[in-house]
Amino acid sequence: MEETRETRIRSALAAAAAAVRETKPFAPSVTNSVTIEFVANTQLACGGSAAMVYLPDEGEAMAEAAGAVYLNVGTLFPFYAETLPRTVRRLASLRRPWVLDPVAAGMGALRTELLLSMKDASPAIVRGNASEILSLASLWGLSRGGKGGGKGVDAADPVEAAEEAAKALARHTGGAVAVSGETDFVTDGALAARSGGGSRWMPEVTGCGCSLGGVMAVYAAVAEPFAAALAATALYNLAGARAERLCRGPGSFKAAFLDELHVATPEDIAGNPLVLEEA
Amino acid sequence: MEETRETRIRSALAAAAAAVRETKPFAPSVTNSVTIEFVANTQLACGGSAAMVYLPDEGEAMAEAAGAVYLNVGTLFPFYAETLPRTVRRLASLRRPWVLDPVAAGMGALRTELLLSMKDASPAIVRGNASEILSLASLWGLSRGGKGGGKGVDAADPVEAAEEAAKALARHTGGAVAVSGETDFVTDGALAARSGGGSRWMPEVTGCGCSLGGVMAVYAAVAEPFAAALAATALYNLAGARAERLCRGPGSFKAAFLDELHVATPEDIAGNPLVLEEA
Amino acid sequence: MEETRETRIRSALAAAAAAVRETKPFAPSVTNSVTIEFVANTQLACGGSAAMVYLPDEGEAMAEAAGAVYLNVGTLFPFYAETLPRTVRRLASLRRPWVLDPVAAGMGALRTELLLSMKDASPAIVRGNASEILSLASLWGLSRGGKGGGKGVDAADPVEAAEEAAKALARHTGGAVAVSGETDFVTDGALAARSGGGSRWMPEVTGCGCSLGGVMAVYAAVAEPFAAALAATALYNLAGARAERLCRGPGSFKAAFLDELHVATPEDIAGNPLVLEEA
Repeated sequence: MEETRETRIRSALAAAAAAVRETKPFAPSVTNSVTIEFVANTQLACGGSAAMVYLPDEGEAMAEAAGAVYLNVGTLFPFYAETLPRTVRRLASLRRPWVLDPVAAGMGALRTELLLSMKDASPAIVRGNASEILSLASLWGLSRGGKGGGKGVDAADPVEAAEEAAKALARHTGGAVAVSGETDFVTDGALAARSGGGSRWMPEVTGCGCSLGGVMAVYAAVAEPFAAALAATALYNLAGARAERLCRGPGSFKAAFLDELHVATPEDIAGNPLVLEEA
Repeated sequence: MEETRETRIRSALAAAAAAVRETKPFAPSVTNSVTIEFVANTQLACGGSAAMVYLPDEGEAMAEAAGAVYLNVGTLFPFYAETLPRTVRRLASLRRPWVLDPVAAGMGALRTELLLSMKDASPAIVRGNASEILSLASLWGLSRGGKGGGKGVDAADPVEAAEEAAKALARHTGGAVAVSGETDFVTDGALAARSGGGSRWMPEVTGCGCSLGGVMAVYAAVAEPFAAALAATALYNLAGARAERLCRGPGSFKAAFLDELHVATPEDIAGNPLVLEEA
Repeated sequence: MEETRETRIRSALAAAAAAVRETKPFAPSVTNSVTIEFVANTQLACGGSAAMVYLPDEGEAMAEAAGAVYLNVGTLFPFYAETLPRTVRRLASLRRPWVLDPVAAGMGALRTELLLSMKDASPAIVRGNASEILSLASLWGLSRGGKGGGKGVDAADPVEAAEEAAKALARHTGGAVAVSGETDFVTDGALAARSGGGSRWMPEVTGCGCSLGGVMAVYAAVAEPFAAALAATALYNLAGARAERLCRGPGSFKAAFLDELHVATPEDIAGNPLVLEEA
């Protein structure tokens, strides 16, 4: 019974990866300017297509043209007060899947206002580190917060501390939630998966989290949220582990990681270490 | 006769490349924030000097200080409504060469307004993919548009589909127009060149188009528009083909490509595959 | 006597480097968007923690959370007119160390206004190329300017030309001043150090200056200004020289440089070529 479920999930991951390679899904972003180039390059490397915009009407145009959209609140500009809500409304009216990356949730008035405004906008996937997932669940009144007040964009909480918050978020949105960390946790509120692999270098290269969100959007264009979030996570863990064997530090890791994102096959992705359980 | 013309053009390419290496032309930009670092690094690698600005008076100051300027409408900020027209006016009054990169032409109200305002501002070079060149020519009333509505910043049209639009644009601006794609097309409205080489990896690394525009600006500081656009294109095709032999994916390609931009000699650039014809 | 002073300084460099590795200092930035990713990646590679923000209340929140802050005026946004002064005021009230990088000092009205407003805000470290240090000292009425009007962000003056200005700035701020160039000059107004090594590739990769400022902020969180500025400079010169031996151009240099930033030990950093003198 367990094996049947796992086999079914692994098939869904392989199918998602194959569909990405075949259809080159367009997954544009409104995202932060620190990791914006890396997000685009990872989306291209995994087989998707990218574009980034800042203005309200362009966010709406992207929502129209997209297979799925990636929204990251990392480095907010003042005019995002209009861009993000208008983009989210258009996504909702189109029922277009989108990924929310609540970077540094809890810091700053505009970020808090924007994240609060997205509570009922049903992102297909929410992706963050443990502290961000805890902060978002707390902000949305779904659970208590974590330690918070960590080091800006780095997690101050372990993945395990955010598992209940992740499940609560997933049950609220009706989509999937992914907590990034040493062992990644992905849940849709009913099922949960732990994805292994990755590399010690991933937290040492800025944007490994953001760009995973961007790649989830590429996958969300062709697969349902849980499979999309888990396939992208498995791809990252696989590419990270492989790249680590080829590198001597964070600079050579980053180049090798992009190479491995491109090289990974659907079978590789589906075969990456995975543990499933009831949520 | 043909051979004479080709010999003359190839000499002009070698002379442009040698002049870049000798004079390190300063080619500042107002450009998008996705590929901004890559634009700067390619400009440095090919022998130029770079700076990027956002504010209106800084755009004007750059126009004053520059050998040529690169303007890219990729990720517009609201205040570009003032920065770009003021910079363009200063460029025109100084008769300073500049390169227009009409990224995602046709998408968004501000982009359309800005591109319309540049119709009679005589960019020395217009560079884009086929869809962007078709959209700009259509926007300026010089030809019918292409498929358009493609995938954001990726071309939905083949290079050949944009050749007539490119010629019409070149005749209108009095400068050169370059269409990037599998085989690049460069024209000044009288003469046309097809430049071969390049790499399958170039569309898989974000910014290979933008940064080609930035490198064209470096060349436009020391050469007339057609030779500048064609020399930069030849350099890109040469460096791309060489880098492909050294890489295993998009990450290692990007590093190798920057290396090859630096290594290429004027003779290498002048000798890259090239076919000339009347426009 | 001389040997004792040098031994003491080298011990301080080793202690600073060891403290960075042990405590992973959080050194957030308000910085330019050209080199923002490279600043983050170098801060991570050297053992620090990074975050970048744009909005006024986020600048204040970062000042609260930080060990030290990096402020770079490279690509100003209009709203920096509020973000930078509010961040600086909060830093001053907290007596939190911060690094000022006066990129392109002298160009543009907002940049001039912002730099003037920082005159009495006591940055722990000012870091720039010779032209920027000369411009800032002139702007603050501490010395005459240099050639100025150079190529945007590239120095038009040699390091030696800025030594007196650097000393005047250091005596005014009560902190340290670092002039980047072929041989770097670091002073606190009483003592001066020349740090050797580095690589011909460093000016060919955008952000080697900015990111050195970011790494100085990481060090300023755990060491007094002169030791912090000098340790970061020594690390850069060491990593640059090592990376040069492994590369064939600016692309491979950049990756190798990040690797070497990570690999360098406190002993390596303390042992890098160094000449001390009275300021």
